[in-house]
Amino acid sequence: MSKSALVILAQGAEEMETIITVDMLRRGGVTVTLAGLDGNSPVLCSRQVTVVPDKSLADALAANPQYDAVILPGGLEGSDRLSKSSVVGTLLKEHEKAGKIVAAICAAPTAFVAHGVAQGKRVTSYPTTKDKIAGAAGGYQYVEGERVVVDGNIVTSRGPGTAYWFGLKLIELLTGKEKADTVEKGMIITGY
Amino acid sequence: MSKSALVILAQGAEEMETIITVDMLRRGGVTVTLAGLDGNSPVLCSRQVTVVPDKSLADALAANPQYDAVILPGGLEGSDRLSKSSVVGTLLKEHEKAGKIVAAICAAPTAFVAHGVAQGKRVTSYPTTKDKIAGAAGGYQYVEGERVVVDGNIVTSRGPGTAYWFGLKLIELLTGKEKADTVEKGMIITGY
Repeated sequence: MSKSALVILAQGAEEMETIITVDMLRRGGVTVTLAGLDGNSPVLCSRQVTVVPDKSLADALAANPQYDAVILPGGLEGSDRLSKSSVVGTLLKEHEKAGKIVAAICAAPTAFVAHGVAQGKRVTSYPTTKDKIAGAAGGYQYVEGERVVVDGNIVTSRGPGTAYWFGLKLIELLTGKEKADTVEKGMIITGY
Repeated sequence: MSKSALVILAQGAEEMETIITVDMLRRGGVTVTLAGLDGNSPVLCSRQVTVVPDKSLADALAANPQYDAVILPGGLEGSDRLSKSSVVGTLLKEHEKAGKIVAAICAAPTAFVAHGVAQGKRVTSYPTTKDKIAGAAGGYQYVEGERVVVDGNIVTSRGPGTAYWFGLKLIELLTGKEKADTVEKGMIITGY
């Protein structure tokens, strides 16, 4: 059975971080559910692109309470909405505890802080959100200078421009390095 | 007045190529219209992401018959639909003749061949589509080993993994190198 990933889409999400991640994981053979935080209606993203979720987050959790990975795209407004959602807080904590992959990119690692997730772990984020994480309670070890940081089951990345490598690392962790290499070649990130 | 770009969204388009380009150009201050080839309904892309166009291509051309750039995202099915559209053929030829930027990524340069656009120019594309272009009438000079190829007003690129650099080059050509550098830094493609 293929691995499963839940990508949570909030209004104001960074659309390229969202779509690159979903697209790449599907290329990697992962069954991805793009779930709308507030329902199944089309979601207006940070640069005015409107994306239709596969289903609502409520329906996604009703269908499968536990995914192999839960992934939070960034975008300042989107990350703020993820930070304020108690449903997101609960599912992040449950997935972290179960040893599933819990991942966030750009501003979204601030939602980890808001929900007390990934405490004591090495994490990175969008540079301007560093203080919110490095200065927070929870003993976060803030990392700079790496596109993607993996600490146990916690995966974080820096911004839209690191999303290719965030996607590749998630594929590697879920389906193996060989599959990640195949996706990398198919996309022509290098070897152009 | 800001520069204008028309990105044409066909069913089966490669969603990350589409969204990266739209998002980046908007970051670069370009007024982007994401136009649905067959209307303004949501469009199912190549990896099952559904994207809502800003308006139909017909409405986009009625509002503005000439943009500073016309951009074709790839995806095999999407590129095939762009290749078969006489409306796309006409607008590509008109924009090329007027010296506006005419750009395509991944499989979409095959639409140039289908419509007799960019003849005699240096172009690149997704590697598996090379023969359709290099072997076609029209004297195309096929280029390998470059992420983005610019020849006069014709801009082409290789695949989803070169889309960041396709976006940066289009911003540079439309609004200048300084703006492209600012977008690059804000996205953290390098300097992470």
